[in-house]
Amino acid sequence: MNYCSCCAATVTLRVPEGDTVPRYVCNQCGTIHYINPKMVVGALAEWQGKILLCKRAIEPRLGMWTLPAGFMEMAETTAEAALRETLEEACATIELAELYTLVNVPHIGQVHMFYRAHLPAPVFAAGIESLEVALFDEADIPWDDIAFRSIAVTLRQYFADRAKGEFKFRTYDLGPRAQF
Amino acid sequence: MNYCSCCAATVTLRVPEGDTVPRYVCNQCGTIHYINPKMVVGALAEWQGKILLCKRAIEPRLGMWTLPAGFMEMAETTAEAALRETLEEACATIELAELYTLVNVPHIGQVHMFYRAHLPAPVFAAGIESLEVALFDEADIPWDDIAFRSIAVTLRQYFADRAKGEFKFRTYDLGPRAQF
Repeated sequence: MNYCSCCAATVTLRVPEGDTVPRYVCNQCGTIHYINPKMVVGALAEWQGKILLCKRAIEPRLGMWTLPAGFMEMAETTAEAALRETLEEACATIELAELYTLVNVPHIGQVHMFYRAHLPAPVFAAGIESLEVALFDEADIPWDDIAFRSIAVTLRQYFADRAKGEFKFRTYDLGPRAQF
Repeated sequence: MNYCSCCAATVTLRVPEGDTVPRYVCNQCGTIHYINPKMVVGALAEWQGKILLCKRAIEPRLGMWTLPAGFMEMAETTAEAALRETLEEACATIELAELYTLVNVPHIGQVHMFYRAHLPAPVFAAGIESLEVALFDEADIPWDDIAFRSIAVTLRQYFADRAKGEFKFRTYDLGPRAQF
């Protein structure tokens, strides 16, 4: 951020009075521009025991597999975001169950959430952000080509819970990826 | 938003190519300025059966009672946000239990989350955003003066669950408040 989005004057990164965190503050109109974490919401949809995954057609992680998910928009609920993203990325209409995982990714200012869901029929196609969409048995999950760790964490929890016959909401915190 | 925060040129609200939602797009450098929902995170802390509430010293809902909560910051987890807000607003150091409620408030672009927590000793004070901080028995909760519906929903769930002896994570969606 270089300029104030209200008045176009320059901004300075400083701690406002009564605050504890540096913010971009306008040098002319005084507007404080807050930057907060974003939510990424998606769905783990199952059809006859198989899981719906999308191969990413966009960066980051182009060519790797993900659960359908994306940035939550204004004026929608977390459930609506999960349904919309699944429709956009996998052209699939799913039936949502409960919120299943919440994964903090603080070093990139994101919180990822995934719902469990039921795909009522094997009807899907690659949306504009996907190269390919497919159903995977647990044994065929491409673990080495999963796009994001929050996806892998959610899938692993799912298969462990499914084996026990009981699904339980859980939260996770991820640190930065090891560089080597 | 009137001006681009990157280059200070004017912006136009339009649907970018390949998108479905109107965004503020810079007329000069082309930057797309996304606006996404924000998270408000707090804690429901109990000491010897009593609940820690804060009387708000700031708008909105100045003078009304709330659970300690506030906007999640970059580079922190949801749990860290709940601990920080409780320390800031109630000067209390709590021990967090699990995430307990997630409340969508789509008409204002917010998602509220509350953790259950234990206050290890009745040590607290009004932080700069609170007029007063106090512990309430269930029978003394000021239901008519609760600042936000997400707080009331969370407290009601808590007392119902406590009576049953089992706490369960739940999600809620709130619509606009009735105007009359």
